[in-house]
Amino acid sequence: MDEFELIDRLVRLFDESGASLPDGVLVVPNGDDAAVVRPSSGLSTLTTDALVDGVHFALDLCSLQDAGFRSIAVNLSDLAAMGATPTGLLVSLILPPSLADCDVLEIGRGIACASARFDVPVIGGNITRTSGPTVISITACGDQRGPCGPRSGARIGDGLWVSGHPGDGAIGLRLLQSHPLIAERFPRLVSAWRRPQPRLDLIPLFHRGLVDAAIDISDGLLADLGHICKASGILAAVDKGAIPVSQDAIQAARMAGIPDLDRLVLTGGDDYQLLIAAPPSSEPFMIDAGLARIGTFEPGAGVEIIESGVRNRFVGNRGWLHRQDRDS
Amino acid sequence: MDEFELIDRLVRLFDESGASLPDGVLVVPNGDDAAVVRPSSGLSTLTTDALVDGVHFALDLCSLQDAGFRSIAVNLSDLAAMGATPTGLLVSLILPPSLADCDVLEIGRGIACASARFDVPVIGGNITRTSGPTVISITACGDQRGPCGPRSGARIGDGLWVSGHPGDGAIGLRLLQSHPLIAERFPRLVSAWRRPQPRLDLIPLFHRGLVDAAIDISDGLLADLGHICKASGILAAVDKGAIPVSQDAIQAARMAGIPDLDRLVLTGGDDYQLLIAAPPSSEPFMIDAGLARIGTFEPGAGVEIIESGVRNRFVGNRGWLHRQDRDS
Repeated sequence: MDEFELIDRLVRLFDESGASLPDGVLVVPNGDDAAVVRPSSGLSTLTTDALVDGVHFALDLCSLQDAGFRSIAVNLSDLAAMGATPTGLLVSLILPPSLADCDVLEIGRGIACASARFDVPVIGGNITRTSGPTVISITACGDQRGPCGPRSGARIGDGLWVSGHPGDGAIGLRLLQSHPLIAERFPRLVSAWRRPQPRLDLIPLFHRGLVDAAIDISDGLLADLGHICKASGILAAVDKGAIPVSQDAIQAARMAGIPDLDRLVLTGGDDYQLLIAAPPSSEPFMIDAGLARIGTFEPGAGVEIIESGVRNRFVGNRGWLHRQDRDS
Repeated sequence: MDEFELIDRLVRLFDESGASLPDGVLVVPNGDDAAVVRPSSGLSTLTTDALVDGVHFALDLCSLQDAGFRSIAVNLSDLAAMGATPTGLLVSLILPPSLADCDVLEIGRGIACASARFDVPVIGGNITRTSGPTVISITACGDQRGPCGPRSGARIGDGLWVSGHPGDGAIGLRLLQSHPLIAERFPRLVSAWRRPQPRLDLIPLFHRGLVDAAIDISDGLLADLGHICKASGILAAVDKGAIPVSQDAIQAARMAGIPDLDRLVLTGGDDYQLLIAAPPSSEPFMIDAGLARIGTFEPGAGVEIIESGVRNRFVGNRGWLHRQDRDS
């Protein structure tokens, strides 16, 4: 198969995924110099993220289809964190010559699967051959129909909310790496890492003006919270006991003898859940949406974790925590 | 420098480039989960292309700054081919660990230089470390204020027009590869390859409805013309003698003893000029804009080249031409 045939095959996969093209959204289809989208709001939201074999996925720990799916999911998660409704995907595949056409199509199937699952069409892209590892570089485009919850939007008195179960993705990965037999017993944790589900379902909270600031916790809950605090010029106090760790994670950690479950939950990353700063008036809606309140925004700077009445300061994913003098 | 510091430094470079942010275009600046743009037309045009060291640029033939500049230029060229006015750039840098921070900043300077030169802000991006070669993956976003000249738009009787001097880029590259001393005497040819200038100046032709179809000739004049013919279900007859080869190219080919100048002009690629199908009524405007008429669209399929009254059929960049039986 030459490159053009391979592209044709991929385009057919994407077209057949059944992702809907709402009336007028996609003006020029796949295969021209560029794609044209018409966001109903008049605002296009754009994000890009590249996934590299051996860094963001690993072909000994997941399938090529998983890698394709995951590459789409992590980009859609960034749109979810902006409250933007996805409208289209651009797919750049940067591939070693050793990757056979059938393997490339497997990546394509994973992308098509995510495209169908989240109802977002692939509207363009390109293929490049290189001597390096497989890179899947995705750009996701969204329609900004409401406020975006910028990182700088958190205010003193806002509650800090999180969706889902932080740590599931990191523990899923740890199981796959070090405890493959136990991993088989926890498909939900493994799937949280292999096929994360971006929280597009939470976008209506943004539309209704309930969100002051939001971010996804792909770099780890505390590190990403730190980005909000820095951009907003504010302190976040996190009640560690309130963080909703999943029963699966607790059980798997016990079975596998994982000693640093806390650390994985707070700094593990690979979670595509949202962290949201919301004013007190938003509280009932956050609870309705299944979010858990895990802290409060206060005057100050940085991130502090409260555990058994003691405050520790978060000093970065490597340095972890140090005792907060002013409270000791 | 850690990754976040490096990103801060790059963002500062981009912000200082002076690329204008027209009122309301950029709603959420650099550094959030995603960027938001407001195209005045309500239509966003999106394109993405990845450049790989050793494939699309070569650090022994150009500087890191050139590579950065070039990565932006080739993407803006795709917007130009759609008649879309650029509004923003997303920059994905996929870098080997061996690339020092100061080298990354050199790439950043080249990107900032192109951003300033073409007045398009960098609105987001990411950095990833990998074991492979340097990859610069760019997404360019544009504002589709007028018709886009789709590849499928060429009609029987349309004239075939080309901007600039096809072959300059490919000859510049050949000189750098094989005749470095001669290359020094032809800075314009070298620059056509290292720092191509996308033909954003031709976008008004699209706005005025003068263009039926357009494409840039990055894959080579005949191959890209083939894309138009295929999408439009039409034949293009190219008058080889009418193709405007530059005096520099002719002179350099003579000095360096390059035997295949014709081939480089017709199939060399690396030119970021536009090929346009335009109706007869557009002719005076095409001439005004400095384009050269090099052929006509006719009933049929594929691409034929007329030279000294003989028609040859283009059979692909590798196969080149074969004698057209029906005319022989």
